[in-house]
Amino acid sequence: MTGLFVVFEGGDSVGKTTQVALLGTWLAERSVPHVVTRQPGGTEVGAELRRLVLDPSFGDVSPRAEALMYAADKAQHVYELVSPALEAGQVVVCDRYVDSMVAYQGAGRALGQDEVARIAWWAVGDLRPDLTILLDADPGDAVATIKDKDRLESAGLDVHRRARQFFLDLAAAEPARYLVLNARGTREEIAAAIRDRLLPMLP
Amino acid sequence: MTGLFVVFEGGDSVGKTTQVALLGTWLAERSVPHVVTRQPGGTEVGAELRRLVLDPSFGDVSPRAEALMYAADKAQHVYELVSPALEAGQVVVCDRYVDSMVAYQGAGRALGQDEVARIAWWAVGDLRPDLTILLDADPGDAVATIKDKDRLESAGLDVHRRARQFFLDLAAAEPARYLVLNARGTREEIAAAIRDRLLPMLP
Repeated sequence: MTGLFVVFEGGDSVGKTTQVALLGTWLAERSVPHVVTRQPGGTEVGAELRRLVLDPSFGDVSPRAEALMYAADKAQHVYELVSPALEAGQVVVCDRYVDSMVAYQGAGRALGQDEVARIAWWAVGDLRPDLTILLDADPGDAVATIKDKDRLESAGLDVHRRARQFFLDLAAAEPARYLVLNARGTREEIAAAIRDRLLPMLP
Repeated sequence: MTGLFVVFEGGDSVGKTTQVALLGTWLAERSVPHVVTRQPGGTEVGAELRRLVLDPSFGDVSPRAEALMYAADKAQHVYELVSPALEAGQVVVCDRYVDSMVAYQGAGRALGQDEVARIAWWAVGDLRPDLTILLDADPGDAVATIKDKDRLESAGLDVHRRARQFFLDLAAAEPARYLVLNARGTREEIAAAIRDRLLPMLP
């Protein structure tokens, strides 16, 4: 693969969507071929899976079924979109990836973090990001600003605190593959730190 | 769990649906509380997942995504239907279960049979059938009688031959948990053999 795979991770409402968009704009200004995408829901099948998981009319979706649907979303997304773009030499910027799934389905819901991680990495054929940008914030601050309530977001502060620690532990274990930024910095400070780190990595 | 979990396995068009229905009728006649169900598609979420996998308008669904969607179907089915019925002391009769998934997604499609089996058993929380009834037939005969063509059925005779061998190997490894019947027997001969085996097992 000749492209560059950049992932944004972090809790809800830490500004991932904003920073993904700013990075996309910067890449466009530099005429770098790129794709901006998201998990879950970055493909047509993925959007349907996300709808199934979140639609309360389907009643009580089992935690294992939910984790497997998120894994299926990842599998399809990598197969249909991420891998072809990387093979074409593009930069792929993805809002959430495997770490979020393991944080929320595994660490967050007591399904067995190791097994959830194993399934998620199997789903994506072990495709690792070149860089994961972790926007870190105290979940107590973030939860207060959430507008959309869905199942994940209503799962309580405790889940978000465990997820935050999980992200930080992953980043500490592989510092070369993670850029941890304080999400309470200004939008421009954060965007500048991301650009500085990515500039020498661009294809 | 105080109920009895009975699964039918075998290739396409070997008469599983007929025998499942005959067994249901027999249980009803004996006033044995029971549930007749199927995988995939035995729940509302499962039916949606089956639709996603089979609907050609979703284009090229990745083999890993497909396997994970079948696993999610299993997880929801066990959670929502099979486990509650068994806990209530009922007999659950299920048309296809984990063996079919591993046979067609793992052995059939070269995804890695061990990993597919691991994911499928994780999905169902390692709930093993008390008895699996394998209706065995030469796939060359069976394929000639198929009416519905879907993706699995159009995957070719080779997949079906490998699946048949996989089922037979599982049955040979655990004879106490499998009843292997020649699917070319008459409908009544097969039904009688199933009743004979199940009668002493009923709750």
